Amino acid sequence: MVSAHNTDGSAPRRPALQVRYELITLGDELLLGLTANGHLTFIGAQLGRRGALLRRNVTITDEADAIAAQFRESWARADVIITTGGLGPTCDDRTRDVVAEVLGQKLIFNAAIKQAIEERFARHGRKMTDNNLKQAYVFERGEVLNNPNGTAPGLWAEQDGKVLVMLPGPPNELQPMFVDQVVPRLAARGLLLEREAYVQLRTAGVGESALETKLQPIFDRVGPALSVAFCAHQGAVDCRVSSPSGALTTSDLEAVAGECATLLGDDFMCYGHDSLARVCAELLRGQEKKLAVVETATGGLLANAFTEVCGACKFFAGGVVCCSNDAKMQLLGVPECLLLQHGAVSDEAAVAMATGAAETLGADYALAVTGFAGAAETGASPGANAVGTIFIALFSPAGVWSKKLSYPGPRPTVKVRAVNAALDWLRRELLRAHRGEATPTRRIGVMQ
Amino acid sequence: MVSAHNTDGSAPRRPALQVRYELITLGDELLLGLTANGHLTFIGAQLGRRGALLRRNVTITDEADAIAAQFRESWARADVIITTGGLGPTCDDRTRDVVAEVLGQKLIFNAAIKQAIEERFARHGRKMTDNNLKQAYVFERGEVLNNPNGTAPGLWAEQDGKVLVMLPGPPNELQPMFVDQVVPRLAARGLLLEREAYVQLRTAGVGESALETKLQPIFDRVGPALSVAFCAHQGAVDCRVSSPSGALTTSDLEAVAGECATLLGDDFMCYGHDSLARVCAELLRGQEKKLAVVETATGGLLANAFTEVCGACKFFAGGVVCCSNDAKMQLLGVPECLLLQHGAVSDEAAVAMATGAAETLGADYALAVTGFAGAAETGASPGANAVGTIFIALFSPAGVWSKKLSYPGPRPTVKVRAVNAALDWLRRELLRAHRGEATPTRRIGVMQ
Repeated sequence: MVSAHNTDGSAPRRPALQVRYELITLGDELLLGLTANGHLTFIGAQLGRRGALLRRNVTITDEADAIAAQFRESWARADVIITTGGLGPTCDDRTRDVVAEVLGQKLIFNAAIKQAIEERFARHGRKMTDNNLKQAYVFERGEVLNNPNGTAPGLWAEQDGKVLVMLPGPPNELQPMFVDQVVPRLAARGLLLEREAYVQLRTAGVGESALETKLQPIFDRVGPALSVAFCAHQGAVDCRVSSPSGALTTSDLEAVAGECATLLGDDFMCYGHDSLARVCAELLRGQEKKLAVVETATGGLLANAFTEVCGACKFFAGGVVCCSNDAKMQLLGVPECLLLQHGAVSDEAAVAMATGAAETLGADYALAVTGFAGAAETGASPGANAVGTIFIALFSPAGVWSKKLSYPGPRPTVKVRAVNAALDWLRRELLRAHRGEATPTRRIGVMQ
Repeated sequence: MVSAHNTDGSAPRRPALQVRYELITLGDELLLGLTANGHLTFIGAQLGRRGALLRRNVTITDEADAIAAQFRESWARADVIITTGGLGPTCDDRTRDVVAEVLGQKLIFNAAIKQAIEERFARHGRKMTDNNLKQAYVFERGEVLNNPNGTAPGLWAEQDGKVLVMLPGPPNELQPMFVDQVVPRLAARGLLLEREAYVQLRTAGVGESALETKLQPIFDRVGPALSVAFCAHQGAVDCRVSSPSGALTTSDLEAVAGECATLLGDDFMCYGHDSLARVCAELLRGQEKKLAVVETATGGLLANAFTEVCGACKFFAGGVVCCSNDAKMQLLGVPECLLLQHGAVSDEAAVAMATGAAETLGADYALAVTGFAGAAETGASPGANAVGTIFIALFSPAGVWSKKLSYPGPRPTVKVRAVNAALDWLRRELLRAHRGEATPTRRIGVMQ
């Protein structure tokens, strides 16, 4: 059975999907719009992968009254409550005290935590101030979640048939604690699945409805034991197959996913959670090829996508970010007459930029993106081409082509979609090269 | 008096800060971690600027029961409720119906909205499907908030002495509606201030506690009518001065801010909300100078900061993103022997990269960033220099210098802090050049 079970073999309390999870995120900086609520995104995704659905996230101020009222209400209705923030040393950090009072728990001093904090300060050559001692107080009936990247430990308590998890606010402290300590504890109690709840196929370059239409015959044949969910990103759609009833095993699900991948051909990108840039990087590494990029409209985000991949030096020959014609001519040898005749936002310019980047940087493949991503701050006039018009060119050992794309939407969306379109084109060309296939367009020139 | 007042001159209901605002964000995609909750960040910041504090944000699923329960609870305690999402044409979009039922409001058909939706479809060459008609139903006692960028209008209702604002989910639809229609309506009712509630000074390159220590004598002299808040970002701290009691006028506050700015000297960046890149851009434009950048560790984000500024072509000569020595040598003429002797992450490499970028791209100023931002995906070994070690070089008409910085924290933090440190160094150098001052370090070579 796929649904949750305890590690000791005892029966699960209930399927993970029926466990009511609530997340309380604390901090005025969230409500004032100074910091994005990344904890919701991270924890929501982590729970989803293990078959649980976060039912509610409440963000409240640091005030003691607000914390007490919200915690009391959430504790009454949730099975598992996760809190973030308010565990530090300053007077704003009231969560521990307030929650202990609502639960009727005593806070007791833990000498090991005090020592760990002192050692941490000593390692950084600083003396511990007394307010840090607050962080050494823990629930009398509960467990401590160690914090390898900070001073405030997390707290774990089980009471009234419910679970409370309290985590510190900094993401680099919270995230490893959640993955390494919280997820295994929840899974051991049958509140999360022991492994990922679904098999995920990532696709690129195909819309959600086209994908659904294509795969529906497979889903129909497998029958109602199969559950399917689609998640659309900018130019990429994930398809998750699962079996909430447990009627299908993980290998059954993997077989269904494999059949879908075969049917999708090159629209299938990968299993799991890899990024488009990482999939391209793997293909480049496997073929021992190097890539260069040149971009105007995407302003550095295409290059950044590759430098986020580990070991980028092995395959990433370099990138150029330009907006003036001068830079294109000086760095990449793009002829001025071409830019003057056709304009900097044109098929011809994109092809010349990709070719120039490949030749200058000694790369086997090159991507060029030029266009109008939309007004940066005010309504700039884009000239003949409308805002959202993007030209992408791909240089490869087989030739060089360009294509014109048009995206509606605000500037950040246009930028991300243009980056994803460029990456997906490279991915498809690398797949064809890997199979020794010809590129299905004419060899040299401009592809409209 | 600075606090809220009605446009018709009548007394305010109460100061904006005492109005209880709650935000209900709807959508499974938020709870599943597929999309960041940008509405919280945007709306929280907008309210804060006008003297109001968002007290709570609740994110819930699209289920009718969850919406009804949450709306009922929030309506009982809040003065103003803003909802986002769930107003579209599909069967998931239940917010309108559920909320109308809780409020005991009838939904009535609005022919003008139907016509606007039909015209919108026609403009895009598509036929309107019938499910879109759902969006033409509005509260019997309420107002319509027009949506210039989408089909679903927003809804406004006043009932039980409270205000309800319902907005569609897409950010490019919601944001202009909030600024152009919601903020003026709230201000007219005395629920927000008529203008920004505080005067904001942005600073860069100085820590929060150092800033506070330096400015405290001014605050002490002005006395308790002044309220001061500090907001720290990565390498930049904002200081907001306000007068919640209204004892100080806006010109009083501007005078206090002006005194702070003078005392801070070059640590003062700007008034208001401009970015570091924009402040640099203004200085470059004012001095008719051009900038080039070259970056390894920041992977394209330094270039992207400038291309986000409107009219970047006027001052941005171009950028190079590289991680291999080859790219530095090929594009920028950095001597191989230098990279081999000192390493690619060194003062010497940074200085050579900045010089090469300025010369190759014909720029007056150039920034180079090289270093180890931390493992991209796995724990890569950084060699002799620790993770978080960054070298920045600045080329200017006065000479070229480098400095070594070290940032703790995860990779994204290191990248943003390195970008901000580079921008701030450029800003200070441009200020000195503007005043005709010499750079306060030796003229050529490496500044440790």
